[in-house]
This record gives sequence, structure tokens and C-alpha cells, in this order.
Amino acid sequence: MNYSIIRYILCKILEFAALFMALPFLVGIIYQEEAAISFLIVMAGCLAVSLVGRRFKPTSKVFYAKEGFVTVSLSWILLSLVGALPFYLSGEFPTYVDALYETVSGLTTTGATVLTDVECLSRSIQFWRCFTHWIGGMGVLVLILAVLPLSGSYNMHLMRAESPGPSVGKLVPRVKNTAMILYGIYIVITVMEVIALLFAGMGLYEAMTLTFSTVGTGGFGLLNSSIGSYSTSIQTIFTVFMLACGINFQVYYLLLIRKPKEAFCSEELRYYLGIIFLAAVMIAINVRGFFESGFQAFHHSLFQVVSVMTTTGFATLDYNVWPEFSKAVLFLLTLLGACAGSTGGGFKVSRLIILWRCVKNEISVAIHPRSIKKIHMEGHTVEEGTLRSVQVYTAIYTLIFLVSFLLLSLNEFDFVTNITAIAANFNNVGPGLNMVGPAGNYVQFSVFSKLVLMFDMLAGRLELLPILVLFSPKTWKR
Amino acid sequence: MNYSIIRYILCKILEFAALFMALPFLVGIIYQEEAAISFLIVMAGCLAVSLVGRRFKPTSKVFYAKEGFVTVSLSWILLSLVGALPFYLSGEFPTYVDALYETVSGLTTTGATVLTDVECLSRSIQFWRCFTHWIGGMGVLVLILAVLPLSGSYNMHLMRAESPGPSVGKLVPRVKNTAMILYGIYIVITVMEVIALLFAGMGLYEAMTLTFSTVGTGGFGLLNSSIGSYSTSIQTIFTVFMLACGINFQVYYLLLIRKPKEAFCSEELRYYLGIIFLAAVMIAINVRGFFESGFQAFHHSLFQVVSVMTTTGFATLDYNVWPEFSKAVLFLLTLLGACAGSTGGGFKVSRLIILWRCVKNEISVAIHPRSIKKIHMEGHTVEEGTLRSVQVYTAIYTLIFLVSFLLLSLNEFDFVTNITAIAANFNNVGPGLNMVGPAGNYVQFSVFSKLVLMFDMLAGRLELLPILVLFSPKTWKR
Repeated sequence: MNYSIIRYILCKILEFAALFMALPFLVGIIYQEEAAISFLIVMAGCLAVSLVGRRFKPTSKVFYAKEGFVTVSLSWILLSLVGALPFYLSGEFPTYVDALYETVSGLTTTGATVLTDVECLSRSIQFWRCFTHWIGGMGVLVLILAVLPLSGSYNMHLMRAESPGPSVGKLVPRVKNTAMILYGIYIVITVMEVIALLFAGMGLYEAMTLTFSTVGTGGFGLLNSSIGSYSTSIQTIFTVFMLACGINFQVYYLLLIRKPKEAFCSEELRYYLGIIFLAAVMIAINVRGFFESGFQAFHHSLFQVVSVMTTTGFATLDYNVWPEFSKAVLFLLTLLGACAGSTGGGFKVSRLIILWRCVKNEISVAIHPRSIKKIHMEGHTVEEGTLRSVQVYTAIYTLIFLVSFLLLSLNEFDFVTNITAIAANFNNVGPGLNMVGPAGNYVQFSVFSKLVLMFDMLAGRLELLPILVLFSPKTWKR
Repeated sequence: MNYSIIRYILCKILEFAALFMALPFLVGIIYQEEAAISFLIVMAGCLAVSLVGRRFKPTSKVFYAKEGFVTVSLSWILLSLVGALPFYLSGEFPTYVDALYETVSGLTTTGATVLTDVECLSRSIQFWRCFTHWIGGMGVLVLILAVLPLSGSYNMHLMRAESPGPSVGKLVPRVKNTAMILYGIYIVITVMEVIALLFAGMGLYEAMTLTFSTVGTGGFGLLNSSIGSYSTSIQTIFTVFMLACGINFQVYYLLLIRKPKEAFCSEELRYYLGIIFLAAVMIAINVRGFFESGFQAFHHSLFQVVSVMTTTGFATLDYNVWPEFSKAVLFLLTLLGACAGSTGGGFKVSRLIILWRCVKNEISVAIHPRSIKKIHMEGHTVEEGTLRSVQVYTAIYTLIFLVSFLLLSLNEFDFVTNITAIAANFNNVGPGLNMVGPAGNYVQFSVFSKLVLMFDMLAGRLELLPILVLFSPKTWKR
């Protein structure tokens, strides 16, 4: 294990953490809040530690996949530990574990909260809370790759370990340029949503924070009613931008380089939109009686479906009171998640497509044993290694899900609360059903349960392997 | 598709159905019940149709895997359709769909019932109900292979399609002999349990019917309280024989040919016993407060764990009132199931072991990309094809599970009822939680829901592929 280079990158993470916190600090200064001091203290601490750490230069350039996974995991854990400090120091969170849960939930773009009242938070804390979504949405190491003059073999390993999806779609041959293009698109979408919300009559502070939560597909809001009290047009803006950020960013790149045909031919995109439309229609029919008009039913149904499928977790109402069928659809969408290469989490549509084709293939082989065919996706043959990793991913995913459910049951909360809490945390959605429904929160869970949920959020966001590699004894053997 | 040979085997199935029904008919005669007439009518019908059908001899000997899967699926469906007739004709079941549900539940050794009162049934109907467990436990085609002078390529294809587990363990080179040995062991265990129950003071009728339910790992009982009102010693006899029938029958064969070392070295056996012990201890600690003594707590905990893990579904009490943690453990055991090559259903312990090793392998590959290793099981290398099929099995299993859950949610029953009903039917266990808990039943479900559950029971018992092949359009293309 190349410890020196890992230390070097972790120091970079601390510097970036300080840089990120400059924004909420500024917000604190503008609104003259005490919480600003907490940010200042943490920023100073980060820079001090980083200065000391950077005095030891990396001695070796050896950097393999193993180092990539470990670095990514440790970076996310370090950023969570540091990011929780302002929450805790400001005194607005009762315990450090609660502050940490909120930060992990923010960075992993989950949006699950331990707060019963988010409206009493100071503005700088609210800003930091939502900003963690934006940081985690595209990934902090992707950002480091984009802006720092790093080169060599570790670029690809870091990118692969942090980017979601069964295979990393490099947009251009150089990793650094890919990272820059991804962040470029991300920033453009962010700015577009802020402008749209300003046009719809929202103030700048509100527009910025809620945009961070949307484009990061996070789900933290500013009001206890989530998005329920906003106008239909503002809710529609959220629907559009959540939908947009659940799409593979490769699609935007193809549009950018004027290849609209390739962009719209994406199989994953078509399945993603198809599933959302189908689910929204089914739910709208199922909940028609809850609304005055068919339009209202479809509007709220579509909002909830997009919010859950993109793993954002915003809500315009408490869908916990909807019929069982609608709740079952939302539960299944919670498990599925958005497209690979988007800011959304979950199992990913592309994995489902590959898995479905494996199943069809297996049935074909059963019928005609000699008819083993290649599996295609987006016009290419899917490699054996990718197939195997998708299948094993499904297995690991299921095992972690079930074990977490068992551990959470020690709480003695009801079955539905436990199973949907795991689904909502593991897939980075946020709200589940019953006690953890859109009107509930995670404050009642024990410290042990919160640790399990934090593990699930990190494992889900980093797509299992980095976290598993970090905790595997084999990694640390000489 | 070789229709002539499929027709030939289906006629055999009808003859066997008539043969099986001779037993409950005899019970009806002894107890002078009207229901005996229903059996007589169905037996006569079966033989008449079979006589007509057998006049057309098989024209071709071509028999591939495809024909094997289709034959097995159709055999089970035909046997269910015919087996339900006495239930319906006797007037003791309100509708044919209910009678069919009960028969599918019986043959697949599920043990889920649509009856609120099983004590009012006539004895011959009760006998037939439990006897279907015995027939389904080892499989009807295995029986046909054992007793009929069939030969040629279809033996292996039929055996493979009906026998549970990731790979068929042929005990001896000839399929016919393997089938004979399996049924031989099965009959010996059956006789042993009947004798044990007689010694414990039970009457012959009761001992026989409950033995069928135990050794088939079915779960139909004679009393509304399932096994709750029997003495502790009788309950212990059930525990022992359920446990015994959840073990791979290969272990008994190895003992028979005096290879005890190989028998006890079985990895699957050790994991199976280990999981049962661990689960029973965890639950016993969790429910200690419900019982007067620690022994009682462990006795009932062990009974329930063995019953669920072997997919039998007997209950000594209503564990629906137990704490959430205990219910979560039982739910996970419902999903897991017994050993391959046993009479139990579910996902199977051996699949879990293989999957777990795939997961470990994947983590190893992530750490050292060039370290792809073979996966071993029971001292042998697991073939690539088996690995792939276990992984794809997991995927199909999960997909069918989730889609069934969605379809069942149309009922508007609660989440836990729906998800545990699917788990309990798909894995051939029987009771779930809430409305379908040990004290509940499946009568409230709609006809559509019952059809979904019947599909799941058959798919679960036949381990997915035969039923999927039957319903795949590709199978029927020329």
C-alpha cells in the first residue's frame, strides 16, 4: 500500500474542504450569524493539518486499483468527519453522531435527516447542508482530478472508484479532460436551475440552496414540508432538473459535440424515461381520488416518481398515506435508482438492462444449450468481466441489504420502517415509509443503527467495492 | 418440440395421479366418508383419459433440455389441476381456484392454506391434502424415473429439471438408480417418523398424515393451531425430522455406503446446521421473556427456525407477536431455505455459499486485478457455467420476487402481508407475517393474487427455469 500518496491526496481533500466551507462562511458573514465562527475554526484546522501533512512528499508513484479504492473511501470518510464539525460546533445538532449522519447523508446525496425542524437552522448551516449535496453529486475526487495537475496511472483508478455505473464512460481519452467536461456540464445545469428559480420568483439564497439539493439529487430542503408549499410552476422546475440530473452526463456531452442522434439513441435513457412515465401514469391512476383534477394527480405522481427514481427524495406531499400499490411502486423505484454516470444513486437502470439480458440469455441457453450469445448494450458487446461484475454486484447488494435490515431490526421499530429505511439510505434516496416517510425523520434510531445507515449510504454512493475493499483484511496484508 | 413423448409422459402422470388417489380413497372407505366418491370419479377420469392418450405411441425419441423443462412444468401443472378436483368435487372447498391453490401449495410443499378451519375437513380430504406434500417433496418425475423402464437421454433432462439445487448430484452413474436410491431413503425416513410418532402416543392416521407434511417439508396440519397443541416430545420429533429432510439426501447416501467422513465433511451441511443453531440462539435470547424457562424459549425458537429454514411452515405458536428482530431473522430464513438435493425449497444454502465465494473473489480481483481464482465447493472446482447460473438465478429470483410484490400490492393489504406472502409462497414455506402469519391464511386474496402466488410456488419449487422456459415464446417457435 502506497501510504505516502494516500496521505498526499487526503491533505488535498482537507484543503478542498476548507475551500468549500468558505461559501457557507460567507453566507454566515452576510447574515451575521454566529455559526460563521464554526466554519472559520474548521477551515483553519483543515489548512493547518494539511500544511503539516504536505511537508512529507509522496515517495513512490506506485498506484494500483487497490490504492484507488482505499483513497476514494478514505477521502469520503474524512470529508464526512470534517464536514460534520461545523454542524456540531454551531450547537445546532445535539450530538456529533447526528451531525455526522447529516453530513454523510448530504455528501452521499441521500437527503435523510435527523432533524425534526429544519426551519430553525441558521442560514449558513442550511447552506452547508445543501452544498454537501452539490459536492457529493459529481464527486470530490472528480473535482480534484479536474482542477489539479495530477497525472499518471492513478487518475483512472480514482475516477473508476468514484464514478457510478457498471463501466466508466470516459468521454475523452484523458481522464483530466473528462473530469473537467463533467464538472463543466454540472456547473452549467446548476446555473440554469438557479436562473429558472429566480425567474419563478424565488430569492437568490433559496434558489441556490435548493438548486444544490436538486442537481446533486440530494433532497435536503429548507422547509419542514419539503417542497410541498411551493407553487406548481416551481415544483415543475424541480421535476425537470431532477429528471435532467438522473440522466447519464455522457448524453449531454454528445449533445455538446453535436451528436444528437447518438445522444437520443441511448438505450439507458429510453428505459429511464419509459420507466418514469409508466410509473407516473400507474400511480396517477391509483391516487386519482386524492386530487381535484387529473392534472394535479399526474403532477404530484410525476414529481414523486422522478424524485424517488433519481434518488433525490424531495416530496410535495406525504405519500405515506397513498394506497399500497403506489407505495409499492415507489419502493421498487427506490431500489432501482437513476442512470449510470448521473448524479443519482441506486442500483442503476443500466445494471437492470444488463441483468435482464443475462436472464433472457440464460433462458435461451436452457432452450438451446449451444446458443450462448454475446450481450449487447448501447451498440457494444458487454465484456465478460462487466457481466460478471454486474451479477456479483447484485449479489453483494442483496446481501448487504438483508444484513442491514437484520441489524436495523434490533431497534424494534416496525418491519416497513426498517426495510424502507435501508432501501432509502442504501440507494441514497432519503425518505422511506412509515416512521421514515416524507413527514418523518431518522432521529429515533440508535447510534448503532445510524452507523449501519451511514455505512449503507457510503457503500451505496461509492457502489460497494471501494468500501468493501477498505474493510477487507486482504487489502492490509503485506 | 417432441409433442408425442410429452403426451406420453403426461399420460403416465395421470396414471400416477389415479394411483396416488387410491390411498385417500381407501381412507374414505375406512371412515365411510362421502368424499371417497370424489376420489373414485377423478381416478376413473384420469385412467380413461390416459387410456385414450396412450393409444398414440411416441413417434420420435428426440428429447433435449427444452423438452425436459416443458415436460416437468406441464406435469406439475397437470397434477395440480387434477389433484384439485377431489377437493372441489367433495364440496369442502368453496371454489375451484381455492382448491387449485391448496393443491399447488401441497405439491410444491408450501403449506399455505386458504382454509380458516382445517379441522372440519373430512379425513380422506385431509389425508390427500397432506399426501400431496409427500408426492411433491421428492418430485413426481423422479418417482416415474425410479419405477418405470424409461431409458435414453431424457432421464437426465427430466431429473435435472425437477431436482432442486445449483447442480444435480447424481449419486450413481445411472439416473434410474439415483432416483430409486433417493426414493428409497425418502421412504425409510417416512417410516421412521411414523414409528417415532406412534411410539410417542399418536394414532396411525394422524402419524401418517403429519409425517407426509414433515418429510415433504410441507406444513399442512390437522389442527387449526398447527403443531401448538402437541406435547413437547412430539414437537421435538417434528423438529428432528424437519431438520433431517432439509439435508441433501446425498449425505444419507454417503452414510449408506459407509463413507461417514465424506458425509459429515459436506460444507453445505455444516453451514446449514450452523445457520440454524445461530438463528435459534439469537431468537431464543430475543424471546426469552415470552417463556417460563430458557429451555422452553430455545425449544420453540429452534422449532420455528427449523420449520422456516427447511421451508416446512409448521408453527408451535403465533410468532407474529414476537419482537421485530426475531421476525426479521425468520423472514431472512424464509428467503434462504434448505440444502440443495433435499425436499426443502427456497434459495438454498449451497447457492448462498457459492454466491458468497463469488463476492469474496470479486473483492480479491478488485485488490489484485490479476488474481482471478477458481471457486471451490465440496472439494471440487465450481464450473463457470454453474457460477453463471447461480448468479443469474439470483437475478431472476429477485426480479420475480419484486414484480410479484408489486402485483400483490394491488390487493391493498399492508406492505408486510404482501412482501412476506410472496416470500413464503415463492420459497415454499407457507406462513408469512401479519395477515398471512401462522394464525392467518390466504383466503382473503383475490383470484388474480392467488394466480400470482401459484405461479410463484411452482416457479420456486421447480427453481425458476422450467416455468420460465414453459412461458418463453422462444420455446414454441419452430
